[in-house]
Amino acid sequence: MLTVTRTNHDRMANAIRALSMDAVEQAKSGHPGLPMGAADMATVLFSRFLKFDPKAPTWADRDRFVLSAGHGSMLLYSLLHLTGYESMPMAEIKRFRQLGSKTPGHPENFETLGVETTTGPLGQGIATAVGMALAERHLAATYGRDLVDHHTYVIASDGDLMEGVSQEAIAFAGHMKLNRLIVLFDDNGITIDGKISLSDSVDQVKRFEAAGWAASHVDGHDPEAIAAAIEKAKASNVPTLIACRTTIAYGAPTKAGSEKSHGSPLGAEEIKGARQKLGWNYPAFEIPDDIYELWSAPAKRGAEARTAWETRLGKTGSGKRAEFERRMAKEAPVKKLNGAVRAYKEKLAAEPLNIASRTASENALGVLTEAVPEMVGGSADLTGSNNTRPKGMPVLDADNYGGRFIHYGIREHGMAAAMNGMSLHGGVIPYSGTFLVFSDYCRPALRLAALMGERVIHVFTHDSIGLGEDGPTHQPVEHLAALRAIPNFHVFRPCDAVETLECWQIALETRHGPSALALTRQNLPQLRKQNDKKNLSAQGAYEISPAHDGKAKVSIFASGSEVSLAVEAQALLKERGISARVVSVPSFELFAAQDEKVRKKVLGRTKVNVGVEAAVRQGWDAIIGSNGIFIGMKGFGASAPFKDLYKHFGITAEAIADAAASKVK
Amino acid sequence: MLTVTRTNHDRMANAIRALSMDAVEQAKSGHPGLPMGAADMATVLFSRFLKFDPKAPTWADRDRFVLSAGHGSMLLYSLLHLTGYESMPMAEIKRFRQLGSKTPGHPENFETLGVETTTGPLGQGIATAVGMALAERHLAATYGRDLVDHHTYVIASDGDLMEGVSQEAIAFAGHMKLNRLIVLFDDNGITIDGKISLSDSVDQVKRFEAAGWAASHVDGHDPEAIAAAIEKAKASNVPTLIACRTTIAYGAPTKAGSEKSHGSPLGAEEIKGARQKLGWNYPAFEIPDDIYELWSAPAKRGAEARTAWETRLGKTGSGKRAEFERRMAKEAPVKKLNGAVRAYKEKLAAEPLNIASRTASENALGVLTEAVPEMVGGSADLTGSNNTRPKGMPVLDADNYGGRFIHYGIREHGMAAAMNGMSLHGGVIPYSGTFLVFSDYCRPALRLAALMGERVIHVFTHDSIGLGEDGPTHQPVEHLAALRAIPNFHVFRPCDAVETLECWQIALETRHGPSALALTRQNLPQLRKQNDKKNLSAQGAYEISPAHDGKAKVSIFASGSEVSLAVEAQALLKERGISARVVSVPSFELFAAQDEKVRKKVLGRTKVNVGVEAAVRQGWDAIIGSNGIFIGMKGFGASAPFKDLYKHFGITAEAIADAAASKVK
Repeated sequence: MLTVTRTNHDRMANAIRALSMDAVEQAKSGHPGLPMGAADMATVLFSRFLKFDPKAPTWADRDRFVLSAGHGSMLLYSLLHLTGYESMPMAEIKRFRQLGSKTPGHPENFETLGVETTTGPLGQGIATAVGMALAERHLAATYGRDLVDHHTYVIASDGDLMEGVSQEAIAFAGHMKLNRLIVLFDDNGITIDGKISLSDSVDQVKRFEAAGWAASHVDGHDPEAIAAAIEKAKASNVPTLIACRTTIAYGAPTKAGSEKSHGSPLGAEEIKGARQKLGWNYPAFEIPDDIYELWSAPAKRGAEARTAWETRLGKTGSGKRAEFERRMAKEAPVKKLNGAVRAYKEKLAAEPLNIASRTASENALGVLTEAVPEMVGGSADLTGSNNTRPKGMPVLDADNYGGRFIHYGIREHGMAAAMNGMSLHGGVIPYSGTFLVFSDYCRPALRLAALMGERVIHVFTHDSIGLGEDGPTHQPVEHLAALRAIPNFHVFRPCDAVETLECWQIALETRHGPSALALTRQNLPQLRKQNDKKNLSAQGAYEISPAHDGKAKVSIFASGSEVSLAVEAQALLKERGISARVVSVPSFELFAAQDEKVRKKVLGRTKVNVGVEAAVRQGWDAIIGSNGIFIGMKGFGASAPFKDLYKHFGITAEAIADAAASKVK
Repeated sequence: MLTVTRTNHDRMANAIRALSMDAVEQAKSGHPGLPMGAADMATVLFSRFLKFDPKAPTWADRDRFVLSAGHGSMLLYSLLHLTGYESMPMAEIKRFRQLGSKTPGHPENFETLGVETTTGPLGQGIATAVGMALAERHLAATYGRDLVDHHTYVIASDGDLMEGVSQEAIAFAGHMKLNRLIVLFDDNGITIDGKISLSDSVDQVKRFEAAGWAASHVDGHDPEAIAAAIEKAKASNVPTLIACRTTIAYGAPTKAGSEKSHGSPLGAEEIKGARQKLGWNYPAFEIPDDIYELWSAPAKRGAEARTAWETRLGKTGSGKRAEFERRMAKEAPVKKLNGAVRAYKEKLAAEPLNIASRTASENALGVLTEAVPEMVGGSADLTGSNNTRPKGMPVLDADNYGGRFIHYGIREHGMAAAMNGMSLHGGVIPYSGTFLVFSDYCRPALRLAALMGERVIHVFTHDSIGLGEDGPTHQPVEHLAALRAIPNFHVFRPCDAVETLECWQIALETRHGPSALALTRQNLPQLRKQNDKKNLSAQGAYEISPAHDGKAKVSIFASGSEVSLAVEAQALLKERGISARVVSVPSFELFAAQDEKVRKKVLGRTKVNVGVEAAVRQGWDAIIGSNGIFIGMKGFGASAPFKDLYKHFGITAEAIADAAASKVK
């Protein structure tokens, strides 16, 4: 830890306050309160502790910093500017919240170097940071402390801690003993509506202790107290919460300590007063050289650390080093992966399997996790139902960070957010499992994965009324549509063991986006019996069973478990003298991305189009047309054995054939 | 509190165990572990404390019981059967998990009398119960303890407490000092994956204390200890957690205490062993008369309480009584409501307002909450942004349960679940607010509201890129589609002040289903200037601006803030000699429910159809056809002033007119 005199500390912190209030004022929009209140915490952290190098923002062994309270983005932008990130010149500070700037309203990691994760939706940052800290422990166990030895720091707000996902995150972090995780809580006692006493009485320190954390209170404007607390946290064997009592908009003459400073510009008069109060006698957007000089120290320290690390990396054996670098660069081992897929496809062609797609996924994982060592699996307490733990995969826990399977507990949201953090950290491709219906629980984290373009893979089993007796609370009907609605998010619904393997392959190769695999509980026949070298699922939709005479009058489009029903219906129609073709649609998104020619060919030109999916119609009109027949669900499911349900809701081969035949002239 | 001898207690509890293991066995599916483990807790609660009357399952002043761990449904069904609910004969117990039975896999309040709320998705039950307990306090403050004076009891599992929503719920309940809420935690140390130590180390008692609860441990198989703890809880001035240490599948010879008993039938051999161990020497589904006799006592006690309550109700002044009964019957005051709407429509016609629809909603709430006293509002810490607190509405908090506006804190999920509970309790129509993008956070509770058909109303403001600078994390693009996908859920996106009022009216009149209003931050012109007596929005879609010459070549369909753009585009097209009509689509669901004739008329017969919505296309094909032009969002938004964004993403009157014109031949 460096020491910094009080005067220097104050001037460094005031630079953050000035930039923050000025940028918000210029944008006529933004949140000055948090950056001004948390400036002391952030200054202590960045000036004395944080290991980073602005010249190498993606250096693998840097400390990670997460501003969970993303609305205080000017805090982060100020720090990036002051510490010397070339990508954050003053011009960008001045363009705060403008189109195409590096300074969007909330921190976006895909826009701005030095931003570790996108934050803003409260609770996500702290939960994401848990994943980063876990990835660090996993990679440290795998590659050794010479290569991986860093901390994850978080600044979190009241709102972050009120959100439910924070409980999942802190309980999981406490259980996993993630002692490299240090959370600074900006305990300013103010929310948007007013004093926190309007809506909250939680004793946060006690709550974190209950979750297995070390936790304490400090004066958030006392740099030495903050520094001492961080020092202690670094020596802890469990994660640490430091509740820093602060004054929101510290320095503002009338709005400090008030919700009025939270989410809007302070106004010229108030800013003038703040300048006086803080003794900051410089014009807007002007930082004197001596302060830049003070702020250059951390970068120098970071550069030294990085050089030392690079020396250690250089001394690492070439095989281990190449593998480490490959993983940190997020490059999947394509050759091994393709080889594994090829071999397993051959096997499936030789011995077709009529199994549930969740079991097909388990089988695929057996070979894929072998080929892709960065895959780290898990389940939200449904390991035996999601089939996400291939045989022999060791558990990753506080006793064995080198393991590869995580018991996330009944914490879907925390799991999905942690997965985002693991992917962001690099070196890990996280995949995990829950029931499809519970994708609702983790939606905010799924959305962030899509927005950030992170490769996280969600196994969502029990994907329809096909799960049977558990009934409507457990039967997804709208979830496929709801997930397909998310931009940059791949939803796969494979129809058999071969498609399941293909979809896994695509998900692993999709470097810049999340995927979900919707899988069945019930058995499905293997429809793809020949050994296709090509990944047919990659087209999103393809003719899986052509018309027997090449003169189809009916096209039946289906996904997942309903493709085999479609094939049965095709046979029934043939008996009635009606020629039909069947198109499997494992991915709407990939199909929509095909060029017009391919799309037209797959859609075909039959007058009668039928869509079949045990889910709501929404989205299918794009494939079957608004005049197409849809066989699926109109409302919620029911509790009964699954075969009874398919019959009850009219999703049968007979119903498909009847509906199609009624329209054929 | 009644006393029950230990022998009688054991026999009563064993009846639950026997029915539960037998029903699961017969269904070849289900969860025997929880009912057998929690049988003692439940027996103590139902036999000595719970105030209920099987002859009057919906009696207003009954205690509410919520089985948050809904997978243990056989516990509840056994209790309903044993305590004498006529709607739960043994025949239904034998039909556990079969199509159309009163005994679905998870408790469904809409299927089974005596089930207070649908549970199964973990965490929902406890969070819903918080709303019930809050409604009780509110109505007690409003109507007095003579009419409203009851408790809400919950049995919750590890899973319920691991879910994040539980934190939001307990923090809120603790803050609100809901001392009539008593949670029995079935602390059996087992989750589906195995011992809870695989995934959790939280000290739950400490955690609840941190949230302002009274909390303690007891032996969950010691009836007197449980009874003493409940007795103490009833005297507490804060909510109480009683962590009952239990053995899952208590009585099963080899599977007790093991995850193997959680989610599948025990098997004939194990059941035989359990019968021996429990000293239960009766065949499957047979309950000896003396046990029925023992179990009849609570109902007798309940009937007496109900009779006494009815006497008190009879003595209540007729006006107050009628109002109380109206509210508990969930009948909105239609006449007053319609009068208020009519008067306000007149005013809007006289003085059109160009305001944001969130402001229009605030204005509407001013008159509606006056007419409908059971409306209880709130916001998840965005009161000033959601505009859900009309002027003068008093705050409902621990100091004033009679207030009508709730500061829910930054707890969207807990808020939505509590709203479900308030509606289920009866006497309250809850409405509340957050940003549309955060509907993701409360989706599991929204889904349950739709499944149960509860009238909760969500105000979702900042409904598109129109919110501007906060950027993509705050800009919904997929949320309208994702919400529209939920069956039995009304999504309204009004285009101006008049439609906003109309949508509010429909939402309030929709007795059996939830609604959401998607509202803007930015100002919108009032398009509806004449005083339409009819609620035009009720049709879901209607021609808001006909073609000037009655010979439209283009139909432009739009919702919300984009309707005024469509009207501008219509004018631009007219200048180019192209006749166009504009259809406003405030509700997809209501439009889909219209008969074919109405639908066809509204859709029209123009060759060129354009859909406009600042969101993804999904769902629009049903209106504009898969060949229709869609002007909207293709991906996530960006951070910038909103006018820049509309231009950047090509959602402008010019773009609409150009696209339409290019297709007109």
